[in-house]
Amino acid sequence: MPAKLPFTITFPTEALADSQRPEPAGTRFHVADIRSADWARVAGETDMVVVPYLTPASVLEFLEGSSVSIVQSQMVGYDGVEAVLPSGMTYCNAGGVHEAATGELTLALILASLRGIPEAARSQTTGTWNHEQHPGLADKHVLVLGVGGVGREISRRLEPFEVKITRVARTARMDEFGAVEAVADLETLLPQADVVVLAVLLSDDTRGMVDASFLSLMKDDALLVNVARGPVVNTNDLVAELATGRIMAALDVTDPEPLPADHPLWRSPRTLITPHLGGDTGAFKPRIEKLLRQQIERAVRGDELLNVIF
Amino acid sequence: MPAKLPFTITFPTEALADSQRPEPAGTRFHVADIRSADWARVAGETDMVVVPYLTPASVLEFLEGSSVSIVQSQMVGYDGVEAVLPSGMTYCNAGGVHEAATGELTLALILASLRGIPEAARSQTTGTWNHEQHPGLADKHVLVLGVGGVGREISRRLEPFEVKITRVARTARMDEFGAVEAVADLETLLPQADVVVLAVLLSDDTRGMVDASFLSLMKDDALLVNVARGPVVNTNDLVAELATGRIMAALDVTDPEPLPADHPLWRSPRTLITPHLGGDTGAFKPRIEKLLRQQIERAVRGDELLNVIF
Repeated sequence: MPAKLPFTITFPTEALADSQRPEPAGTRFHVADIRSADWARVAGETDMVVVPYLTPASVLEFLEGSSVSIVQSQMVGYDGVEAVLPSGMTYCNAGGVHEAATGELTLALILASLRGIPEAARSQTTGTWNHEQHPGLADKHVLVLGVGGVGREISRRLEPFEVKITRVARTARMDEFGAVEAVADLETLLPQADVVVLAVLLSDDTRGMVDASFLSLMKDDALLVNVARGPVVNTNDLVAELATGRIMAALDVTDPEPLPADHPLWRSPRTLITPHLGGDTGAFKPRIEKLLRQQIERAVRGDELLNVIF
Repeated sequence: MPAKLPFTITFPTEALADSQRPEPAGTRFHVADIRSADWARVAGETDMVVVPYLTPASVLEFLEGSSVSIVQSQMVGYDGVEAVLPSGMTYCNAGGVHEAATGELTLALILASLRGIPEAARSQTTGTWNHEQHPGLADKHVLVLGVGGVGREISRRLEPFEVKITRVARTARMDEFGAVEAVADLETLLPQADVVVLAVLLSDDTRGMVDASFLSLMKDDALLVNVARGPVVNTNDLVAELATGRIMAALDVTDPEPLPADHPLWRSPRTLITPHLGGDTGAFKPRIEKLLRQQIERAVRGDELLNVIF
């Protein structure tokens, strides 16, 4: 059923609204961050709202009592959304928008860690030419936990690096790319892996999944990569394991986040930390703009929306 | 024609000799670095010598007057070899040994530079969480100069990153992977590229190829990556261009090399320098050992050698 016109869309930034201009027929645009006082001005007439980027699910509480029927996120993860989403609202994530950049960041973290890039970047500040052999990625066995869009883009990018890739999800199965192993078999799988990539959604199943026992199953010198969400890892357990120097870590997400300046994780040996760079590259803009364009067209026409999660 | 037995092979290290033990039938092993006094002891009876890793061509002068007929290098590049190789000796490079690791390092340099890994590694030392958007690799246009083994492995690894790849060699042609553009057309090609990768052999043609005029053709914010040899780039011209902050660079090789602590390149803005990590990873050992095994077998049998350059 086509939407009642004008269909009113509220964007969190002028730039994002501009990207969709001229307004498609039948639509009206507002700009207001749902966390700001501006929101009250438009809350009663907004049909579709675009949530600001990199905000926790709790910001959706500001939608309570508004006229919003469609909530469009700019992120892929939706942990905590179900609990705070006001009833009657449809929540869509940004599936397809971040996978390229997050897959790419994952390779950046793996390659940088295994090829000594962080050490080189630090040696550079003192003009120190310090040639050492680093392990490298070729011939390694990589475990990718999570077979969603991000997991798929990671595996696709790993393919040409002469590695063995094992994909792991909740249940063992075959899909279009081959065999998927079950999380239940991690006890057997983890001791074989040189690189373990976390690309799962944060849920009750995955929260704290990487704990002392998980870490103790990883082989010596193996690399743990987290591009999922901080709380998938038990931070205290990770800090304790890293302190022994036995394994390596590359973390784009942490718990807490941002990591306070005095947090011991910053100083853990063999650890690379990036500040939740995830999907935030030049690839974001054209992809989120395309998704919004398609989503608005569908909403106005009353067609089925893309990426409906709740 | 099979070799006269015993066929005597001199290795630069005990470890490399050990990797080929037990000695194949008809062979005799010595261990001596051609740069050391030990060499004199075995120079008169060595048939095949393995040159130490990461040495300049000039070390081959030590082979003068020896009984060597086969010189096996552990490197791919052979700039300067022809001028110093004693006559009557066959020189083989290590084609196939380093391509995986060098291709992998190239992706590490590109991804690290375009995703802010060096900045993150340095921010980490002060516990600073500094989220900024970085350009990323997806949607970019990458120019790969050089279509040898290293160039091929770079292109193969770039494929899944949603980039446009243009390969450039001395002459325009079609090969099994598609079109190759000519170096003569760089004037048109350079201004279109977001990333320019140097993967050429150092020769009279390529020495100093990247000079002020080449650099001035690169677009704003483009990234120059050198995994070839330092002298392919005119260092003074590069330092001058980088000082303006207009372009980025990621250099695994420099001229001079190693770079002295007070060299201005260390402090050039938007520049990542790694200490000639190239092919030196865990992937090196199994691959050089396999090449030596095959080469020794061929030499003893009198079969055609692999990777003959001169």
